Amino acid sequence: MRERPTPAALVERARAGDPRAVARLISLVEDGADELPAIAAALAPHAGTAQIIGLTGAPGVGKSTTTNELVRALRARDQRVGVLAVDPSSPFTGGAILGDRVRMQDHALDPGVYIRSMSSRGHLGGLSAATPQATRVLEGAGCDVVVVETVGVGQAEVEVASLADTTLVLLAPGMGDAIQAVKAGILEIADVFVVNKADRDGADATYRDIQGMIGLGEREPGEWRPQVVRASAVRAEGIDDVVAAIDKHQAWLVEHGELQIRRERRAAAEIEAIALGVLRERIGTLRGGELLPGLAQQVATGATDPYRAAAELLDRLDT
Amino acid sequence: MRERPTPAALVERARAGDPRAVARLISLVEDGADELPAIAAALAPHAGTAQIIGLTGAPGVGKSTTTNELVRALRARDQRVGVLAVDPSSPFTGGAILGDRVRMQDHALDPGVYIRSMSSRGHLGGLSAATPQATRVLEGAGCDVVVVETVGVGQAEVEVASLADTTLVLLAPGMGDAIQAVKAGILEIADVFVVNKADRDGADATYRDIQGMIGLGEREPGEWRPQVVRASAVRAEGIDDVVAAIDKHQAWLVEHGELQIRRERRAAAEIEAIALGVLRERIGTLRGGELLPGLAQQVATGATDPYRAAAELLDRLDT
Repeated sequence: MRERPTPAALVERARAGDPRAVARLISLVEDGADELPAIAAALAPHAGTAQIIGLTGAPGVGKSTTTNELVRALRARDQRVGVLAVDPSSPFTGGAILGDRVRMQDHALDPGVYIRSMSSRGHLGGLSAATPQATRVLEGAGCDVVVVETVGVGQAEVEVASLADTTLVLLAPGMGDAIQAVKAGILEIADVFVVNKADRDGADATYRDIQGMIGLGEREPGEWRPQVVRASAVRAEGIDDVVAAIDKHQAWLVEHGELQIRRERRAAAEIEAIALGVLRERIGTLRGGELLPGLAQQVATGATDPYRAAAELLDRLDT
Repeated sequence: MRERPTPAALVERARAGDPRAVARLISLVEDGADELPAIAAALAPHAGTAQIIGLTGAPGVGKSTTTNELVRALRARDQRVGVLAVDPSSPFTGGAILGDRVRMQDHALDPGVYIRSMSSRGHLGGLSAATPQATRVLEGAGCDVVVVETVGVGQAEVEVASLADTTLVLLAPGMGDAIQAVKAGILEIADVFVVNKADRDGADATYRDIQGMIGLGEREPGEWRPQVVRASAVRAEGIDDVVAAIDKHQAWLVEHGELQIRRERRAAAEIEAIALGVLRERIGTLRGGELLPGLAQQVATGATDPYRAAAELLDRLDT
């Protein structure tokens, strides 16, 4: 029987360009393996070396085609690129329906590109809990840019924004009006809007609508004003403008000290989530796993209330 | 200066049919007031007296019209009804865009109906954290049925299902195909599908599609098979069938002991969320609020990793 490589050895092999080591690390991270702390420790020295780009939008706006073209553009200037395609589909089945990921096979033979699909099992409606760690794996593997692509539904797009340095929101003509954009809260998360399928009817209206909405927003002096870019990813048109908008935002982040702020905020959220995960587990094991169900029964029958029950839980946790 | 009524007095007045007391209680709950534990204690004796119905669906499927007609049907059999319309719009602005809630004014003068809109501020992408407590307020106020209506985007529809005894998912012809339904995970959460706008083109196809998808699902013997009902809420057609499907599901819940299971599961989630909220607050105040940001800074620079940082946080929390 062969010995399993240590997390540190895997990270070393990943840095040396072994795609199987990268795949193995992401799988370990995705499975929530016991090695997670050791992997995180081995990746720590490489923290902050990659630029993280979030890419989100409704189904059908052309996310994977755009990601594909974006990867091509970044490769053209010799950047190593990682892609995490997170599918926040069904939180129950854990099954990722990844559709036309096949288009990404353009880059399948390029050793400077890692592409990984992840489902979001175990994480209701949002990105996988493993996504931040998977991003760190790709960063540790030497990627200069990591693109996190996810379907823009509810929670997921908010989470991708909190994960990314720069968030792209894709729109397409006829996919819903600007009011829907506001409803989904994407005006607050987008650093760059990409009006994709710009050759189609209605693209100008979509462009104007979103510019109008951005104009309505109040902004402090020096605050970032979301860029709006037209593109047609299937025709490989406008991608340079997308890259230019990303670069402009990146420069703004650095200039305003915002890059550091975002990364520390992200780290704080990550630490807190890990700590709360541990606490949740401890809560689940109190009194042999019987305390919480017992209290829940009392709340359901009205013998106690949720606040008193929570207080009892916390008392137990403290002792 | 008048004395503010105690939570117990407010609950008493709410039970006596004072709509202002109900409104005041929900506002307190929504604001996360210090009175929350006292309110919860005063409401506890009434736990489990209301039937909770979740109603969700994509924008434009006719949720508020359907809710309106559902309320009318329940009132016709003399049930007191509460409606919570939760808008999980923008998690950032906290602003609820409630659109055509005006149609609900059909019931504005009916003392047997409480209608309340809530935004979902402070709760990313999902239902308001206050929603379970607001449900309890309406239950405590003597509502026989509480309808929780929310836009079906991502997290929110999953949460409404975890809150409800019976979850209705509204579909409409041409609003997206069955694959989208699966992607959103609604097949797992719906107890009853309502194909609304059943007079429109494509309604039969939507009906067949969803029946087909349900047929594909594996089911244990005795397990609930989601019902599919056609309706046209604007024409007030098919609402009796919707009510019949709800009644059938309610009977199934009781017969299979599932009602108790769901309610205890819900209570457990509520208790856990309250306890974790307290723990999160404690984490935020460690070392004068400086510990987490300090650790985040170290993680961002690679001086430590998120797991080691979380362990340090937990050590501090324990002492």
